[in-house]
Amino acid sequence: MAGNSFGEIFRVTTFGESHGAAIGCIIDGVPPNIILSEKDIQHDLDRRKPGQSEVTTSRQETDAVEILSGVFEGRTTGTSLALLIRNKDHHSEDYENLKDVFRPGHADYTYAQKFGIRDYRGSGRASGRETAARVAAGAVAKKILSFEGVRILAYTLAVGDVFAQSIDHSVIEQNIVRSPDLRKVQEMITCINEARDLGDSVGGIVEAVVMGCPAGLGDPVFDKLEARLSHAVMSIGAVKGIEFGAGFAVAQMRGSQSNDAPVVDKGHLKTKDNLSGGILGGIATGEDICFRVAVKPTSSIARSQVAAAKDLSLTSLEVKGRHDPCLCPRMVPVVEAMTAIVLADAFLIQKTIR
Amino acid sequence: MAGNSFGEIFRVTTFGESHGAAIGCIIDGVPPNIILSEKDIQHDLDRRKPGQSEVTTSRQETDAVEILSGVFEGRTTGTSLALLIRNKDHHSEDYENLKDVFRPGHADYTYAQKFGIRDYRGSGRASGRETAARVAAGAVAKKILSFEGVRILAYTLAVGDVFAQSIDHSVIEQNIVRSPDLRKVQEMITCINEARDLGDSVGGIVEAVVMGCPAGLGDPVFDKLEARLSHAVMSIGAVKGIEFGAGFAVAQMRGSQSNDAPVVDKGHLKTKDNLSGGILGGIATGEDICFRVAVKPTSSIARSQVAAAKDLSLTSLEVKGRHDPCLCPRMVPVVEAMTAIVLADAFLIQKTIR
Amino acid sequence: MAGNSFGEIFRVTTFGESHGAAIGCIIDGVPPNIILSEKDIQHDLDRRKPGQSEVTTSRQETDAVEILSGVFEGRTTGTSLALLIRNKDHHSEDYENLKDVFRPGHADYTYAQKFGIRDYRGSGRASGRETAARVAAGAVAKKILSFEGVRILAYTLAVGDVFAQSIDHSVIEQNIVRSPDLRKVQEMITCINEARDLGDSVGGIVEAVVMGCPAGLGDPVFDKLEARLSHAVMSIGAVKGIEFGAGFAVAQMRGSQSNDAPVVDKGHLKTKDNLSGGILGGIATGEDICFRVAVKPTSSIARSQVAAAKDLSLTSLEVKGRHDPCLCPRMVPVVEAMTAIVLADAFLIQKTIR
Amino acid sequence: MAGNSFGEIFRVTTFGESHGAAIGCIIDGVPPNIILSEKDIQHDLDRRKPGQSEVTTSRQETDAVEILSGVFEGRTTGTSLALLIRNKDHHSEDYENLKDVFRPGHADYTYAQKFGIRDYRGSGRASGRETAARVAAGAVAKKILSFEGVRILAYTLAVGDVFAQSIDHSVIEQNIVRSPDLRKVQEMITCINEARDLGDSVGGIVEAVVMGCPAGLGDPVFDKLEARLSHAVMSIGAVKGIEFGAGFAVAQMRGSQSNDAPVVDKGHLKTKDNLSGGILGGIATGEDICFRVAVKPTSSIARSQVAAAKDLSLTSLEVKGRHDPCLCPRMVPVVEAMTAIVLADAFLIQKTIR
Repeated sequence: MAGNSFGEIFRVTTFGESHGAAIGCIIDGVPPNIILSEKDIQHDLDRRKPGQSEVTTSRQETDAVEILSGVFEGRTTGTSLALLIRNKDHHSEDYENLKDVFRPGHADYTYAQKFGIRDYRGSGRASGRETAARVAAGAVAKKILSFEGVRILAYTLAVGDVFAQSIDHSVIEQNIVRSPDLRKVQEMITCINEARDLGDSVGGIVEAVVMGCPAGLGDPVFDKLEARLSHAVMSIGAVKGIEFGAGFAVAQMRGSQSNDAPVVDKGHLKTKDNLSGGILGGIATGEDICFRVAVKPTSSIARSQVAAAKDLSLTSLEVKGRHDPCLCPRMVPVVEAMTAIVLADAFLIQKTIR
Repeated sequence: MAGNSFGEIFRVTTFGESHGAAIGCIIDGVPPNIILSEKDIQHDLDRRKPGQSEVTTSRQETDAVEILSGVFEGRTTGTSLALLIRNKDHHSEDYENLKDVFRPGHADYTYAQKFGIRDYRGSGRASGRETAARVAAGAVAKKILSFEGVRILAYTLAVGDVFAQSIDHSVIEQNIVRSPDLRKVQEMITCINEARDLGDSVGGIVEAVVMGCPAGLGDPVFDKLEARLSHAVMSIGAVKGIEFGAGFAVAQMRGSQSNDAPVVDKGHLKTKDNLSGGILGGIATGEDICFRVAVKPTSSIARSQVAAAKDLSLTSLEVKGRHDPCLCPRMVPVVEAMTAIVLADAFLIQKTIR
Repeated sequence: MAGNSFGEIFRVTTFGESHGAAIGCIIDGVPPNIILSEKDIQHDLDRRKPGQSEVTTSRQETDAVEILSGVFEGRTTGTSLALLIRNKDHHSEDYENLKDVFRPGHADYTYAQKFGIRDYRGSGRASGRETAARVAAGAVAKKILSFEGVRILAYTLAVGDVFAQSIDHSVIEQNIVRSPDLRKVQEMITCINEARDLGDSVGGIVEAVVMGCPAGLGDPVFDKLEARLSHAVMSIGAVKGIEFGAGFAVAQMRGSQSNDAPVVDKGHLKTKDNLSGGILGGIATGEDICFRVAVKPTSSIARSQVAAAKDLSLTSLEVKGRHDPCLCPRMVPVVEAMTAIVLADAFLIQKTIR
Repeated sequence: MAGNSFGEIFRVTTFGESHGAAIGCIIDGVPPNIILSEKDIQHDLDRRKPGQSEVTTSRQETDAVEILSGVFEGRTTGTSLALLIRNKDHHSEDYENLKDVFRPGHADYTYAQKFGIRDYRGSGRASGRETAARVAAGAVAKKILSFEGVRILAYTLAVGDVFAQSIDHSVIEQNIVRSPDLRKVQEMITCINEARDLGDSVGGIVEAVVMGCPAGLGDPVFDKLEARLSHAVMSIGAVKGIEFGAGFAVAQMRGSQSNDAPVVDKGHLKTKDNLSGGILGGIATGEDICFRVAVKPTSSIARSQVAAAKDLSLTSLEVKGRHDPCLCPRMVPVVEAMTAIVLADAFLIQKTIR
C-alpha cells in the first residue's frame, strides 16, 4: 500500500535510506528446499555496486549481504528470508547544503510535499541506493527461475545517441558499460566521459530479454505480463518509458504487419519476427520476452544549475556528492532483478491453476 | 492474484466474456455520500460503446449499465458497488471457425496454453469488450476526482503516421477519431478507411493529460505514479508501450537538459517544460501528468492471413466478425478510465498519511 | 480493504443489500476445467434460503443463482466467476419506522457512525442476507475441495441450553434445526418456539468438522489455519466466539494433558484425542479440523424494547419484518461456506511451495 | 500470502528463527512525523522478554531493538520502518535430540509435512520467539493509537482454574503474572510452580480491553473488527479460542437479554452491560472493546512423554531447553501488540472514507 512491497506470492518488502544504518529486504513466498547462500546473492550485488569502474560513482560500498533468516543448513525453509546490507561509505556532510534546496529533476520537492519531512542526506529513501535491495531479491528470484530454465539478460542498448548495432550476449559483462556490441563500447564511454567532464550526465536505453519462458505464463486482464513488468520496471528511479517487442513502432503499422506470421519451430508455435515481444493477451507466447526502457540522465550534476529553495526563491546550485555520469551500466542488474521478481512470481502463481 | 482486480483502496474487480451473459464489476472502497446514478456512468460507456461512428465496429450494444448495490437514495453508502451490463448483440456463430485455429496477434494460443480451455466466441475474456467494465469503474473514479479538482483527458495523438500538430482539448469530442487537432481529423479518417478497405487495420498513439493533480500524490519505491499508471494502462489489450513526459527522448539528453529549470508560478513550483511529465521520484510535482501509449493495429482483420491450427499445421484464415479498423478512438475513454482509477486510489491512499 | 473481499488466491468479493436489486459475488482464482453449473451452487443456497421451515423467517426468496461469467460449455475457464441472485420478496415498507431509530443489538448505530449514511431497509448491507453470496462462493470452494477428498460438515450443536448429546452426521439434514442428535431435535424446536411465542429469539452453538484435510496445509505465523478460519467465521454476523479442539478448556489443562499422546494409525501420525482440533503451529495435522462458534440470538425481535432514536432520546420499539427466531439452522451452511473458502484457498496456496 | 505479513495499510512483515542470526520486522504504512525512538519500542519488548521473572523461561535475551530505517532526526519519514533484534542466548545444542523426533503438541510434525524441511533448533520459525517482532511492531502501532486517545490493556484473567475475581488495571504490571487482581497473584504463582515442579506446564486465559475507541471504526462484511482481531490474536501460537463481550454465554441467552438496553451517557450512546464487547455489525460502538483468549499450556515440558519419531515409531522424550511453565504472563504484551496493530490499521483505513 505504502509502496515498499512488490509481488503477490514471491513478495519483496524493502527498507533503507542512502545514509541510514542499512538497507535490505524481506522476501516472503520463497519455496522451501532451495540451496541458497550469500554467495548466490552477492554476485548481482557486485554487478550493481558503486565504484566498480571509471564510469560509475566513486562511492565505495562493498554491499556485503547477510542472510538473517529463512535458510537452514544451506537450504531455504519456506519461511521469510531477511537480507541485510549495512551502509558504510556515506558522506552525509556533502548534503548539508541541500537541506533547504530542492534539486532540479529530483524527488526533493515531491517528497517534501508528500510527507512534510524528508531525509535530505543522499536523497534518503528516494536514492538509487534502494535498488541494492531489489537486486538482492532479484538474485533469489533468479535462483527459482534457473530451475525452470529461464534466463534473463539486460544490457545497455544506447548511451545518448550511441546505439549498439549488434547484440552479442557473451560480451555484455566484458565491458564496463554493459554494451552488447563491443565495437560501440569505446564510443559509449567517450559519450559518458564528455558529459562528466562538463559536470553533466547522459541518458540511455536498457534492453532486457527473457529466454526460456514457457507459453502460458502470465495472467489476463489487469495483470498481463506487460502490465506487471511495466509496473516493476517503471518503479525504478529515472526510468521514463517502456516498450515491448515492436513497441512504439506498432503505432505506424498495419494489422497485417504487426500480426506477425506464425512459424512452427520444432513443435512449438512461434512467429516470424516476435513483434509482440513474446506476450499476447498478457500471456507469454513461449518466444523471448523483450522490452526496452528509457533511462534519463542522472539528475545530480556538478555543474551549476538554477534551483528552487524551500521558500520558493530561486538560487544557484552545484550538487556535490559522488554520482554516476550515466545510470545505464549499473541499472542493467536492477532491470534484470525486477524482471526476475515478476517472472518468479508468475511461475508461483501459475502453479495455483494446475 | 488471478488478474481480475486492480487498485488498493479503490479496488475494481471485473468479470465477463464478450459473448457471455453480461460483463460488469464490483468496486470496493468507494467513499460514502457521493451522489451517483447510472447516468454518471453511462456517459463514458457511450463514448466507448461499439457502433458509435463509421470508424468503429458495427456491433450494436447499448451498454446500458445497472447499479445493483452500494447506492441508496442516490448516494453511495460506502459499501461495495456492483455494476452490470448485459451483452446483447453477440453473433457467436461468426466464431465457429475459430474453435480450432489460433488467430495471429491474438491471445487464442496463449490462453489455450495457460488454461487448457478457452472461450473462442469473440475472444472470450480476452476480448476488448472487458474494457466496458473498466470504463464504468473509471466513471466512478472520475466522480471522486472531480471533488479534488482533478480532470483527465485523453485523445488520439496519431493514427498510423498522421500526427496531430496542435492540441486543443475542446475539439476532442467533436470528431469521431477523438483528435485534438481538427485540421488532421480528415487525414486520420482517411488513413483508417484505407486500411479497412484493404481488410486491414492501423495502429496509433493515445496521449493522456491529468490536470489539477496536487503535488505530493503518489508513493515511493515500487508504487511510483509512473509504475502504477503503467501497470494500469499497459494492462489494456493492444497497448505495447508507454512513456511519460519527454519519454524515450530522455535517453538522448544531458542531465542539464532533462533536469528542467524551476519556475515559480503563482506560488507554485513548476518547471520550464514539464519534461518529467508531472512526476518526480514517483510522486506528483503539481504540474500536468502527461503520458503517451502505443496502440497496435487491431489483430482481427478481414484479409486473408496465415494462421496456425490447434494441431500446429498452418492454414489460411479470414477473420469474420465486426471489428474496429483502428482502436484509438474507442481506447481514449479506456485510457482515461484506467488513469482515473489509479488517481482516485492515490487520493484515498494519500489520506492515510494525513 | 473496505471489507467486501476475502481470500488470497481463491478470492471472493461480494455485494448487495437486503432490499436492493440483487446480491452476488465475483470469485477470482478458480482453477480452469472444473465442471460447474448453477445446480452445484443452488443446493447450498437452498439449505440457507429463508422460508425453508417453521423455525426460519417467512421471507420467501427462491435465491435462484445465475452464473454470469467464467464458465464455458459447462467448465470453468480460469477467469473470474460472477454469480447473481436477484432479490424478490422484500417488504421495505416494514422498515420505514426504523429510519430514525437504532435497533438494539444491531449495526444501525455503528453504520450510521461510520458512514454517515445507512440503508435502513432490512439492515441494508449489514443484513444476514449478504451471507447468500458467501454460500454461493462456498459451493464453488467445496467443488474444488471435493477433488482433494475434503468434506466439510457443520451442525447445530446447541440451541439455548439444549445440547446435542451425540454426533451422527447422517441425520443433520434430516431435521429442521440441523441437529446431529435426532433425540434432541424436538427439544431444540420447542426451545425456539418458546422464544418466538414471546416475540423473542434464542442463541446457540454451531460446530464444524473438516474431514480429509491432509497434514501440512496452512501457513505459519500470521496466517495460521486457526487465524484464517477465525477471520472467516467471526466475520459472519451474530458470531461472538470461536474455539478449536479442546478450546477454552485448555486454559485449565496441564501440558501433559493438552499435548495429546501420539498414535500411529495406518501409517499416519494422529493423536489420542485430537485436542488440538487438527491444527498445530497453524498447520493441519491430518486429523479432523474441528471448531465451535457461539451464535447470539437474533437481534430483531418482535417484543417491545427500549431503543435509542437518532437524536439519542430513548423510545419504545417493536421490530417488524420477518426474522429467524434462532439463527443456527440457517447459519450451518454459512459456516460451512466460509470454512470451504479458507480451505480451498489454502490448497491453492499450498501448490505454490511444491 | 506465505503468512509472514499482517495488516492492510499499517502492514507488518516479520522474519526470524529462534536460533537464527536475528528476528525483526518491516512496518510499512507508518504515517510521517511521528516522534519515535528505540526507547518507545523497548518498553514493550522488555515486558515480553524471557528471563524477566521466576515464572518465565530462564533464557537470557536483552532483546535490544535497532531501528534501521524510516526515522530521521527522531521522526518517522513515512517510509518503511525496519526493526532488528539480534539473537544472543541460544543454546542450539539443547535441540540436537529433536532432529528426528516430533514433540507432542508442537509444530514439528506439521512443519515437516508442509515444507519438507524444518529448523529444529528451538522450533525455528514456529518458536514463540517470533512474537518479539510482533511486540516491536505493536509498540509503533500503540504510538499511533496514543494520538487517537486509544489505550489497550491485557492481563492474565486466569491461570489454570485460578481466576481473577476483580479487575484493577493499575496493578497488572505490579505482579509477575500480570493479574488484575492482587489477591489472586500468589495463588496463580503457586499454580504455575506446582506445574513446573512436576516438569509440567499450565494454561490460562488472557483478557484484553480497548478503551477510547470511537464509534464507527471497523469495516463491514469480511473485515468486521471481531474478524480482524480474531485473525490477529488467533495467529499467536498456543491460542485456541477467542470470544467477544458475553462470548459463548450468548448461546444460552434470549435476544431480549443479549440486545442490551441502550443508555445515553454524556451525549454518547452506550449499553447497560456492553454484552457485545464494543462491536456491533463488526464496527465499534464507542464502548470498550473486550475479548478473552484461551491459552494452552506450554507444549515443551520436561517430564517424560511419548513422542513419535520421524519413522513414526514411538519413543520416550524429555524436552530439554528453557521454557515458560505458563505462557500467559509473557503473552499479555503480545495480545496487546496484535490488538494495537489491528486498531492502528483500522484508524488508517477509516481515514480513506472521510
